[in-house]
Amino acid sequence: MKAVARLLPHSPPPLPSPPHRSNYYSPQNPNPKLAHLSFPFNPSSYAAAAAAAAVPRALSSAGAAEQEKPIVVVGSANADIYVEIDRLPRPGETVAASRGRTLAGGKGANQACCGGRLAPGNPTYLVGRVGDDAHGRLIEDALRGGGVRLDRLARVGAAPSGHAVVMLQPDGQNSIIIVGGANMSGWPREPRREDLDLVRGAGILLLQREIPDWVNAQVAQEAKGAGVPVIMDAGGVDTPIPKELFGFVDIFSPNETELARLTGMPTETFEQISQAAVKCHEMGLKLVLVKLGSNGSALFVEGEEPIRQPVIPAAKVVDTTGAGDTFTAAFAVALVEGKPMKECLRFAAAAASLCVQVKGAIPSMPDRKSVVELLQSPALETI
Amino acid sequence: MKAVARLLPHSPPPLPSPPHRSNYYSPQNPNPKLAHLSFPFNPSSYAAAAAAAAVPRALSSAGAAEQEKPIVVVGSANADIYVEIDRLPRPGETVAASRGRTLAGGKGANQACCGGRLAPGNPTYLVGRVGDDAHGRLIEDALRGGGVRLDRLARVGAAPSGHAVVMLQPDGQNSIIIVGGANMSGWPREPRREDLDLVRGAGILLLQREIPDWVNAQVAQEAKGAGVPVIMDAGGVDTPIPKELFGFVDIFSPNETELARLTGMPTETFEQISQAAVKCHEMGLKLVLVKLGSNGSALFVEGEEPIRQPVIPAAKVVDTTGAGDTFTAAFAVALVEGKPMKECLRFAAAAASLCVQVKGAIPSMPDRKSVVELLQSPALETI
Repeated sequence: MKAVARLLPHSPPPLPSPPHRSNYYSPQNPNPKLAHLSFPFNPSSYAAAAAAAAVPRALSSAGAAEQEKPIVVVGSANADIYVEIDRLPRPGETVAASRGRTLAGGKGANQACCGGRLAPGNPTYLVGRVGDDAHGRLIEDALRGGGVRLDRLARVGAAPSGHAVVMLQPDGQNSIIIVGGANMSGWPREPRREDLDLVRGAGILLLQREIPDWVNAQVAQEAKGAGVPVIMDAGGVDTPIPKELFGFVDIFSPNETELARLTGMPTETFEQISQAAVKCHEMGLKLVLVKLGSNGSALFVEGEEPIRQPVIPAAKVVDTTGAGDTFTAAFAVALVEGKPMKECLRFAAAAASLCVQVKGAIPSMPDRKSVVELLQSPALETI
Repeated sequence: MKAVARLLPHSPPPLPSPPHRSNYYSPQNPNPKLAHLSFPFNPSSYAAAAAAAAVPRALSSAGAAEQEKPIVVVGSANADIYVEIDRLPRPGETVAASRGRTLAGGKGANQACCGGRLAPGNPTYLVGRVGDDAHGRLIEDALRGGGVRLDRLARVGAAPSGHAVVMLQPDGQNSIIIVGGANMSGWPREPRREDLDLVRGAGILLLQREIPDWVNAQVAQEAKGAGVPVIMDAGGVDTPIPKELFGFVDIFSPNETELARLTGMPTETFEQISQAAVKCHEMGLKLVLVKLGSNGSALFVEGEEPIRQPVIPAAKVVDTTGAGDTFTAAFAVALVEGKPMKECLRFAAAAASLCVQVKGAIPSMPDRKSVVELLQSPALETI
């Protein structure tokens, strides 16, 4: 919780009870009365504090008890059904797959498992929805194996667990069919009291874009009101992000493609990416954490020089699935532990480097020991 | 077990121990020494007995204890993953499904569940292979719900459960990707002693074509040696059926398409179908039970007039999935209970009529009470 103390120097104490429901963002209430919310938060002082946090001397002295505040991911959980085929079937045709495998996935579950593996000192929760079905059991087992608390993962009866059919073709092309299922239709219009309680008490809140925007807005609003930092990974659906959400997000994390889509600007060179990040700042996103694939990553803080992090080379790149989720979640883990921004980037880069060396998403997420060892290896001294 | 007594008037007592393994059909031993096997069985006397069985007066007086001989299905079990899409994705593309649902299926599991529902007096077993995974649990739950004994359904670690992705398109076209998984690769080269024991003690053995031909041949050979009647549904892969299998099969059950494929003959008119059935007889298949969709069904016994059964009209045809499996399995249930052939056909037609009125395969399989009630309804007196 050191990071939070730094990020939000004037953050209020947690609310004694949830604010009146009518203040919540929902499809029926797309413009909650923001002026009535407890947002003492000043974006410019926040950005300055965040920038300062990039400097090691800014390390605060938050107590050990605070370090156990949970990492809370609100997001999707999927069964990813991989089938390897020579070619796509035509309408009416049946083809045999050479291989098939079904694994738990979804950006929410991926990031929660990464949190669970990397942050043994902080409990990690996934607030999510699965169906009451076999795929739901698969997801629960994977999350449990990743050290994620399942208390707030609800089974819903009216929808199947979200799933994706990933059709792997010989030329490396993947055709994907996504069934939103419980991820999209399993959420109550009025947020659950116990979910909000968890969010308000979190050390950090991680969001992505594979659940309805209005659910993200509800929990982000709640987190913001309680002084809990909110990181939103831009991955998921490619529909426009509702402007309301920007006001609740502290750190926005796209890759180059997502950044280009959001801003309508080219993102091929670092200069172009920097200009797109400035546009994000203008849209209200004060901290923009851009994932650049083999070019590493960069954190853009409004009014400051960007902090760049080169990629940490992998011995062998086996499968990049889940690398982006690993990066974002590892960054969050380092942040909640009070590491300065530069170290957060380095920690995230190390985790992503380990992730791409193993096949799959959740199975490839590294444990803390491996990341620490990689960061301490002599070869990395100059990175 | 009356049916067996009739079908195989000179059937030997069950073997005290399995015959020497080298006699078994296997990929390494594609031509077992048939002359050395215990096949006292005479095809022509068998056919005559079967034909006689079509006449009610042929009802034998086998004891009640014998009626509990199990119905044994050796075959496939699948997770069928249905996704409803507007169109197939292109290479590299992601599309959202409007709906998705995953259900247990596979022709072996379908027929076993049908047996379990229709034959409460006889235990029904599925000898099958699933993976040690979530889809395997789904299949096990469905079979258990269908009253199927799971003792001989083995979990294998080296392969996923068989599954099929069924992509439903608005024009009614289904594109399917099949992953054979444990159904294809989960079988030991040497048959398991306990599987063979079960087959030898069966009241009837049901096979289909979604597991390797050599597995079908092994168990069919064992059944034949023990005087257990063997029904093979022609549904499944459309590869040529190895000739060896014909010698072990008592009743072969194709639909028109499968009959045309096997014989290379047209099957558009009943006359053509009759000629194709004659060709089957020449190939060694003495009893051919042809499913004709909305035209009902017909049993062709070599040297006899075919027995025709019109379709029993459904109030509303909702989904024909699993109707063929229901027909074959219901026929087997009636046969093992000692019903004459004509009644077996009628029982099967009634079960299929109920099946098409409910969506899905296993969920649509009727229970015995419903079939009996339908057969006793006054409207059916003339059918």
